[in-house]
Amino acid sequence: MNALARLGMVSETPSENQTTTVSVEPAKDYFVERDGIKYAGMHLLIDLWGATNLDSPELIDKTLCAGAIEAGATILHHHFHHFTPNGGVSGVVVLAESHISIHTWPERSFAALDVFMCGVCDPYKVIPFLREAFKPTHVQINEQKRGLIA
Amino acid sequence: MNALARLGMVSETPSENQTTTVSVEPAKDYFVERDGIKYAGMHLLIDLWGATNLDSPELIDKTLCAGAIEAGATILHHHFHHFTPNGGVSGVVVLAESHISIHTWPERSFAALDVFMCGVCDPYKVIPFLREAFKPTHVQINEQKRGLIA
Repeated sequence: MNALARLGMVSETPSENQTTTVSVEPAKDYFVERDGIKYAGMHLLIDLWGATNLDSPELIDKTLCAGAIEAGATILHHHFHHFTPNGGVSGVVVLAESHISIHTWPERSFAALDVFMCGVCDPYKVIPFLREAFKPTHVQINEQKRGLIA
Repeated sequence: MNALARLGMVSETPSENQTTTVSVEPAKDYFVERDGIKYAGMHLLIDLWGATNLDSPELIDKTLCAGAIEAGATILHHHFHHFTPNGGVSGVVVLAESHISIHTWPERSFAALDVFMCGVCDPYKVIPFLREAFKPTHVQINEQKRGLIA
């Protein structure tokens, strides 16, 4: 989807004849076209090793939301859960352009994140925020283009 | 993490000396050990093509929650967002054992999901629920073991 277009749609008040209007308008294409290929969005799977501060839902929430904004995304919803006694945190930020998730294993100094963004957002812009907040000794990134059309 | 252990922890009322207790107990290992390898959890990236019912947050919510339970997971939180006018749905189910996310492009009959589960849960058990609800003509699955330790 186109991030800006979708954002515009979110804030739109549905009209009474919304369904009718949609059915007669030409279909809009929210897939991304970039560098000659077309796909739904970019999905990064990010593993942090040797990381700290993985037991703080407040810091994690703040970090992921700041990263999302820097990436050009719009936050719709964020929710985090704190586990005891290991202190692990699980949570998500739902975006107008997809989502960010995190699950942490503080006892392993390990966190597994995924950053999925469509439209004009750049998911790689989240990574400096992760480095700053969690000081990982190693960051492993796996990039997947979702819905890639050959 | 071990799903059942983590589940137990979720429902536990934190004791007043929680931090002290944790610091003196031996560290617990919530990574999975299976078939001679050790990892944090199994992460499936699932693309549905030629799918229907992708504009119904109620059906999507019901389907993902039913799949999560069948997979052996515990639902902590679920949240879905319905976009207008294209009818796309974005949302997540946060689990005690990680999460399920979905983003749909009804105009493309396409949906991108990810199912991340640790512990004894089987994320593949979600897939029959997706087939039943969305009748995709093609399902593409990418399996990633997160936090794999060689």
